[in-house]
Amino acid sequence: MADWLEALDRLAHDRAKAGLTRQLRPRAAGDSVVDLAGNDYLGLSDHPRVIGAARQALEAYGLGATGSRLVRGSTGAHTDLEDSLAGWLGADAALVFSSGYLANLAVVRAAGAVCDLVVSDAYNHASLIDGCKISGLPVRVVPHNDPAAVAAVLAAHPGRAAVVTESVFSVDGDLAPLAALHEITSAHGALLIVDDAHALGLLGPSGEGGVAAAGLAGRPDVIVTATLSKALGGAGGVVAGPGQFIRHLVDTGRSFIYDTAPPPAVVAGVLAAVEVARAAGDRRAVLFRRGALLAATLRGAGFPTRDPAAGVLSVPAPGPEPAVAWAADCRDRGVAVGCFRPPSTPDGSSRLRLTVNAGVPEQDFARAMTVILECAP
Amino acid sequence: MADWLEALDRLAHDRAKAGLTRQLRPRAAGDSVVDLAGNDYLGLSDHPRVIGAARQALEAYGLGATGSRLVRGSTGAHTDLEDSLAGWLGADAALVFSSGYLANLAVVRAAGAVCDLVVSDAYNHASLIDGCKISGLPVRVVPHNDPAAVAAVLAAHPGRAAVVTESVFSVDGDLAPLAALHEITSAHGALLIVDDAHALGLLGPSGEGGVAAAGLAGRPDVIVTATLSKALGGAGGVVAGPGQFIRHLVDTGRSFIYDTAPPPAVVAGVLAAVEVARAAGDRRAVLFRRGALLAATLRGAGFPTRDPAAGVLSVPAPGPEPAVAWAADCRDRGVAVGCFRPPSTPDGSSRLRLTVNAGVPEQDFARAMTVILECAP
Ligand SMILES: Cc1ncc(COP(=O)(O)O)c(C=O)c1O
Ligand SMILES: Cc1ncc(COP(=O)(O)O)c(C=O)c1O
Repeated sequence: MADWLEALDRLAHDRAKAGLTRQLRPRAAGDSVVDLAGNDYLGLSDHPRVIGAARQALEAYGLGATGSRLVRGSTGAHTDLEDSLAGWLGADAALVFSSGYLANLAVVRAAGAVCDLVVSDAYNHASLIDGCKISGLPVRVVPHNDPAAVAAVLAAHPGRAAVVTESVFSVDGDLAPLAALHEITSAHGALLIVDDAHALGLLGPSGEGGVAAAGLAGRPDVIVTATLSKALGGAGGVVAGPGQFIRHLVDTGRSFIYDTAPPPAVVAGVLAAVEVARAAGDRRAVLFRRGALLAATLRGAGFPTRDPAAGVLSVPAPGPEPAVAWAADCRDRGVAVGCFRPPSTPDGSSRLRLTVNAGVPEQDFARAMTVILECAP
Repeated sequence: MADWLEALDRLAHDRAKAGLTRQLRPRAAGDSVVDLAGNDYLGLSDHPRVIGAARQALEAYGLGATGSRLVRGSTGAHTDLEDSLAGWLGADAALVFSSGYLANLAVVRAAGAVCDLVVSDAYNHASLIDGCKISGLPVRVVPHNDPAAVAAVLAAHPGRAAVVTESVFSVDGDLAPLAALHEITSAHGALLIVDDAHALGLLGPSGEGGVAAAGLAGRPDVIVTATLSKALGGAGGVVAGPGQFIRHLVDTGRSFIYDTAPPPAVVAGVLAAVEVARAAGDRRAVLFRRGALLAATLRGAGFPTRDPAAGVLSVPAPGPEPAVAWAADCRDRGVAVGCFRPPSTPDGSSRLRLTVNAGVPEQDFARAMTVILECAP
């Protein structure tokens, strides 16, 4: 065997010893597993209107977009979705990407056109961290959800900074102090970039997301990014903000220009999901009720679990192996739960990550709660 | 207006003055435009088997994958596609990503586990360049298609390097000297990473791609990446190579772990496209005949145009504005062609980029050739 393959084997062995091996477990179509692991918060991924719209676009346009947005990839479906998202989020303009990951890479880099520093929350998502790296800007990582720390960095910085945070954090499900952060950024002439991935569709009276819920929709110094793969049940990413910023992305965003557009069928399905989500106050009510119930139940059983800000609950486990065993036992009993270990957990601790899926039937959700408790370490 | 928006306006103004503004032009479903701009080389994006498979998976699984591959996103459709791609490419294993862009970011970074230098062709795609950047490895950019330059760098480097190249280059359509490069990399114990985006489906007796066509399929020191959005008519990306490398990506690849899986419907459609492509010798024959004819016709009209190695033809234009005007005139007459200007062109010159689409009816293709010539500057 080549020596570099031996080196990879040794690294794999080290990961296995540390309990950090990951395994792909394909699910079958229509399996009976109760899903408290995925991010289909409103159960829209198989909503009839979503499927219908996707099917129609598939037949009208074919499968792939066949090119980048600027060459052959832009269709009416893409523009319609962008108009709809901009309207929903209360933003001047919106631009759709093939993933939230690539949207985040583009946004932080684009901020570099007008900023000379990025201030990044310690718990930010990998795509934001990579965005910081790829931007080439100096990066100051600040403690998680600590507006005072952000203020101190901005006060000491003579240039213009971009402050980057999630709204609802992806692993712990807690909410960033967006209004406080915006007070600070606007006082210092800084930009506020918010990844609304886990709040879009869930927070705000019509699901407009965490930025809108904090009263910051349409502010000219706020840029919103989000994935279209969670509450909207599809795939792709979006950046929403001032027209000038969106135009800058169209003209210079490498992960926009040099990437194939998302498939028209996916985009059309997401557009239908936006329409459903805007009117889905009932589903949001189910989600919040279930989240509070699940958290209270877990606390009752001795697991310190906060009420979720949206659909993500974080439950501490005694270590990576017990976390894996807990999740495996749940899975064996037909309940899918997330299991996060380093390096996926920002604080280096292992935990279950439970998501509330308002699309799951009530009795399945009740059974899932029982299973999670019975499998607890 | 905020000063940072003014700054963006000034940058936009500068781009406009340099003729570098980009415009999104959405196309309608079923428009009658002849497509010599997209990358749907074999016309598979609307092949009935592709559409049928995508529609079936859409109904079976819903629209989105609802989570990352490791959490809830892996379905039987994903595994089936990976098995099929590994078999087709003659690789030990394959891993599907949501885009070729994210696949490329992951591969170069993963090479950093066993390499301490990246050697990158000067004309490499933006995603490979970003992959180099994000890897944190030292990068040596070598002149385009210059094996001697690669050999010199490797000879002077004591550690293990990864040499990164495309097979068929995306803008000019020329072929990398893969066999010569592999002789050099294997002599120096280096890895060879090849982005086969524009050759997969087109080169090799069953469309296995440029790496296989160069006799390098399954070599343990060769890693292949590709997008599934060009000849396969879908979306997504793939990395194929030794099982150890793929396992390393599963365990550590940030743009794999922290990204939502591609939609099952897209993946199922691409799987059908692989099956069609393997048996599509007839479509490949049409593509090569058309490519040679188009190149000869353009040369006859005084435009120095090489015979394409696969489906991409590059036609020099006198500057960015004439290139834009040429493309616009073609579009006005119902023919879509690509127009590449800096910074999308590696050598800083502007050109038309024509792609051959074997799915276009013969008489439309003939008319498109006439239009391109009649609109020439
Ligand atoms: C907070 C956050 N940002 C960005 C992403 C990336 O989005 P996508 O999966 O569309 O690439 C995710 C999840 O995948 C996420 O949780
Ligand atoms: C050579 C090359 N590599 C990678 C990519 C990126 O693939 P994707 O569009 O799937 O992100 C492209 C084109 O988009 C390409 O031309």
